[in-house]
Amino acid sequence: MPTETTDSSAATSPSTPSAVTVIGLGAMGKALAGAFLDAGHSVTVWNRTPGKGAGLAARGAVVADSAEAAVRTAELVVVCVLDYDASDAILEPLGPALAGKTLVNVTADVPDRARAAAAWAAEHSIDYLDGAVMVPVPVIGTPDALLFYAGPGDLFARHESVLRALGGKTVHVGEDHGRASVYDLALLDVFYGSMGALVHAFALARAEGVDAADVAPYIATITEILPRILKPGAAEVDARSYPAEDAGLGVMAASVDHIAHASRARGLDSGQIDGIKRMTDRAIALGHFGSSWMANYEALLDPRD
Amino acid sequence: MPTETTDSSAATSPSTPSAVTVIGLGAMGKALAGAFLDAGHSVTVWNRTPGKGAGLAARGAVVADSAEAAVRTAELVVVCVLDYDASDAILEPLGPALAGKTLVNVTADVPDRARAAAAWAAEHSIDYLDGAVMVPVPVIGTPDALLFYAGPGDLFARHESVLRALGGKTVHVGEDHGRASVYDLALLDVFYGSMGALVHAFALARAEGVDAADVAPYIATITEILPRILKPGAAEVDARSYPAEDAGLGVMAASVDHIAHASRARGLDSGQIDGIKRMTDRAIALGHFGSSWMANYEALLDPRD
Repeated sequence: MPTETTDSSAATSPSTPSAVTVIGLGAMGKALAGAFLDAGHSVTVWNRTPGKGAGLAARGAVVADSAEAAVRTAELVVVCVLDYDASDAILEPLGPALAGKTLVNVTADVPDRARAAAAWAAEHSIDYLDGAVMVPVPVIGTPDALLFYAGPGDLFARHESVLRALGGKTVHVGEDHGRASVYDLALLDVFYGSMGALVHAFALARAEGVDAADVAPYIATITEILPRILKPGAAEVDARSYPAEDAGLGVMAASVDHIAHASRARGLDSGQIDGIKRMTDRAIALGHFGSSWMANYEALLDPRD
Repeated sequence: MPTETTDSSAATSPSTPSAVTVIGLGAMGKALAGAFLDAGHSVTVWNRTPGKGAGLAARGAVVADSAEAAVRTAELVVVCVLDYDASDAILEPLGPALAGKTLVNVTADVPDRARAAAAWAAEHSIDYLDGAVMVPVPVIGTPDALLFYAGPGDLFARHESVLRALGGKTVHVGEDHGRASVYDLALLDVFYGSMGALVHAFALARAEGVDAADVAPYIATITEILPRILKPGAAEVDARSYPAEDAGLGVMAASVDHIAHASRARGLDSGQIDGIKRMTDRAIALGHFGSSWMANYEALLDPRD
């Protein structure tokens, strides 16, 4: 189980002032640097494109002339850029300068990129944590801000009090450096799946003469069901056992087909619901007509071709 | 705006006892007949395959020998079968027997089937409401049970007190007979989109060495966001205006691509997320890189081919 810190005072209680360097001053990088400043830390910042640090400088940050100068000023270096292509390009020349320091990369990408970055860090004697920021910019530094970290537990423990400046929900999810990205992708998978379906539901309603605003309040009856499904659904997947309580997968697949059919009848893009239909078809072909929805897991593991 | 009745006493307060016929005794049809019995109505039931009405007969229902005999006993006839192929097969020979009565078809299908059924009913001088049951069997007859009805408002008003025996949230959504099905499909679209993404998120986590049970509690931070997005998202779609507050669609599309990439790297089916990626690609091609997520609406209306 992950170690979670959800003390509501976490994001505001002071830690021993430390020196922190933040690389990357997009909207999120600026928010991270600002949260470290608010917590009383000495912050040095650097961005590949100059001119992004003025607001932070006015709040007390030092804007370094080079990435190497930036990382030399602190024991803890936090990187937040577009993706790992961008962070690799910045970090690779800095191996010697980072040796013996702790690098925390909260750049979003796939788990294998995080693991590759950890391997590179190990070669250069850099202590490495991989992170994922799960909240939008305005939430950073508040008790509600959720951030995942993966890597050595003792390394996380050493920097936890400083990292907690970024968010009250600061969670170490395991030693495997890919794990923060795994949690990140799993949460975003549900987010974009839901949001893709939501915009499609609005499009289907509009195509049938119903305003999105009319149907939206009732969609809440669906979105409010979802939190209750998470724990029992996870238990079914982990046990690979899918007992159906009420309507089974076969009945649900018929419903999925109605949506796809109605969508195509109005000339709407139906790519997402068609993908779901192929999954349910495959699960039924694997013998799960009478199983619960979670039996689709077996179809995902064993696609048709 | 729909007329909603959410009085918490709705499902239990008595209405004048009436005669109601229920056609179709699957799990849902039985629940509907049972709720009418609980509310004190005289209930006649019929099912194509005999032998399904014994439990209801023990509670006071009359089991008719034929569909025609069943519909002749009541002014209000409720049909709940598998789909409109099934309901058409049952109802078409009953036109003369149903003339002058009110037919309420809560069978799930697509909007055009409901409209076709309404046209058939009009030809036979049958008053017609189309309905959709939005809750599972155990919720029927409770204050929380949500059911949509579409068709003439005065017809709904005439039967509302009896129909409220089925659920406290009994909503007339408009005169167009297809509209209950539109609401049904829109809600289910979001449900299956979310549930498809959830099982995929669990599969992705497992493929990366993370138990579904470990990641599930954090997915709640995502599902709890969704209810707050419904109203502003609907307003954007209805206005076809998509101002981005924080991260725009281009940044979100990169995130969608990470999920699809990681899924394929582990050999998982990625049909749903690939469908979402094609939508975001199309929306960006239409000029919405910097718009909000809801700009995907434009891509759904105007697919590539």
